[in-house]
Amino acid sequence: MSTEPALLLALDLAGTFAFALNGALTAVRVVRLDIVGVVTLGMITALGGGIIRDVIIDYLPPATFSDWRYLAVAAAGSLIAFVFGQRLDRMTGTITMLDAAGLSLFAVTGASKALDMGLGPAQAVILGAITGVGGGTVRDVLIQRIPTVLRSELYAIPALVGATITVVATRTDIYGLPLALGAAVVCFGIRMVGVQFGLNAPGPPGRRRG
Amino acid sequence: MSTEPALLLALDLAGTFAFALNGALTAVRVVRLDIVGVVTLGMITALGGGIIRDVIIDYLPPATFSDWRYLAVAAAGSLIAFVFGQRLDRMTGTITMLDAAGLSLFAVTGASKALDMGLGPAQAVILGAITGVGGGTVRDVLIQRIPTVLRSELYAIPALVGATITVVATRTDIYGLPLALGAAVVCFGIRMVGVQFGLNAPGPPGRRRG
Amino acid sequence: MSTEPALLLALDLAGTFAFALNGALTAVRVVRLDIVGVVTLGMITALGGGIIRDVIIDYLPPATFSDWRYLAVAAAGSLIAFVFGQRLDRMTGTITMLDAAGLSLFAVTGASKALDMGLGPAQAVILGAITGVGGGTVRDVLIQRIPTVLRSELYAIPALVGATITVVATRTDIYGLPLALGAAVVCFGIRMVGVQFGLNAPGPPGRRRG
Repeated sequence: MSTEPALLLALDLAGTFAFALNGALTAVRVVRLDIVGVVTLGMITALGGGIIRDVIIDYLPPATFSDWRYLAVAAAGSLIAFVFGQRLDRMTGTITMLDAAGLSLFAVTGASKALDMGLGPAQAVILGAITGVGGGTVRDVLIQRIPTVLRSELYAIPALVGATITVVATRTDIYGLPLALGAAVVCFGIRMVGVQFGLNAPGPPGRRRG
Repeated sequence: MSTEPALLLALDLAGTFAFALNGALTAVRVVRLDIVGVVTLGMITALGGGIIRDVIIDYLPPATFSDWRYLAVAAAGSLIAFVFGQRLDRMTGTITMLDAAGLSLFAVTGASKALDMGLGPAQAVILGAITGVGGGTVRDVLIQRIPTVLRSELYAIPALVGATITVVATRTDIYGLPLALGAAVVCFGIRMVGVQFGLNAPGPPGRRRG
Repeated sequence: MSTEPALLLALDLAGTFAFALNGALTAVRVVRLDIVGVVTLGMITALGGGIIRDVIIDYLPPATFSDWRYLAVAAAGSLIAFVFGQRLDRMTGTITMLDAAGLSLFAVTGASKALDMGLGPAQAVILGAITGVGGGTVRDVLIQRIPTVLRSELYAIPALVGATITVVATRTDIYGLPLALGAAVVCFGIRMVGVQFGLNAPGPPGRRRG
């Protein structure tokens, strides 16, 4: 069964919006950029994962460039974050939560789209994870941080879990709105629990973590 | 009306040459690399924006790899900068001007090529800007600088203006050599005025810039 | 004459394995990441060069996503490095040698594959070099090092030599297992001699290297 296109689009745009807010707030808070820098970083964070996904699955030009809603949503999210970002209390928590939301939604839509384009299940899981972590990784490279996906908190694992649920559900013909949202919620939950409790994946054997 | 291919090619090669000189001089001056490093950084800066553009508009293999002149011009520019770079006075000014020239030419050719490949006008404007800022952004990431496009001087805005003029002119059937050059000159002018006077885009509301 | 596909695949998987070990050991040693970070960096290093190559030659989805063996080999290499990495003496030497092995194998397979896809000889040489240096460059960017290809040791040159031998041999119809291995060995040899003796390419004229 192919995923309902409208569902996929809605989730994809929601992820785009979350990452646009996240990238733009990061620019306001961490790097203190001006409006062009803020909107640029917001749009790159919002669109980066999907562009990487679409290049790999050979869906070119990427959805970002064939459907105006992606650009509009990414620009709107970035501008909103620029305008309201200064008034925000608890900025760091908000930034982390928006990142987790984007990660979760994109892991699900990336895996779905990969299956729709004929990729195998393992590849679809990996591609879902790449879609989820892609925008944030480009964001971190541009502002010279070691990307979150490499640092120790749980980040790639929830994306892989969300993508796996999506692939299994699609293969067993039970995919649909509740399941897609469920997969995203599971991914989001694992990520936020990891952030909350500072849980990390295990380090190499024979070494103590400081 | 489709752009005249010869005009597009000439502007594209001129931009490639400017960015090759710029990237190689940056390598000589800022990072003090050897000949391989200098030529590598020159070629990546020269070819990066066009490769990103061609991947996104699905023009594969990229022009860089289907037309030998791109590789030749990029290599020649990098070698010239390597040989003559040391004797150059006022290096920083030259590097900035070459970057502005590449930015302007690529913003125009990127937008033209996007329209030729059937992208919508807003997408063509964004893609023109991406083409203009792409090579320099990859250059900055490789030598560990926060990319110019994110830092505060006017950089993305002139690229967007140049691309917009190109799109409007093409849509109204008045595109041609004078207009393409005009769009590039406007972009170049805004960029250089921004550099000269240290003008920046406005910061987020409620914050003073130091 | 087209390259034997089985030979190309074997060399490609060997390069993938070498880069997976290299990237994962780098993560263990240099950045001290946890298991997810180690496997992620190993897989990106292993698969990065090939994905860039396949995007440029329009072989999409990339081999990484159409043939499960790439993902399996990359994951296996990364996990092996994670488990045994701590017990390794002379880690730095091993990391350098694995990087040289991946560089050599990918320069040869990259050039071969580019010819198979119809690119010209100069383009195939450049693409071979890009394939060889690609994964390591992405690795270095992610962990915030100036990429080896820009720093002064011989790195791009052996890749270009290996790719050139491959292109000349293929064009003269004498390509096959011995020649492909020979080209890789020559590339590996130049790289290791450069590392051993700290040889660098010449700097710009008129400047003394410190």
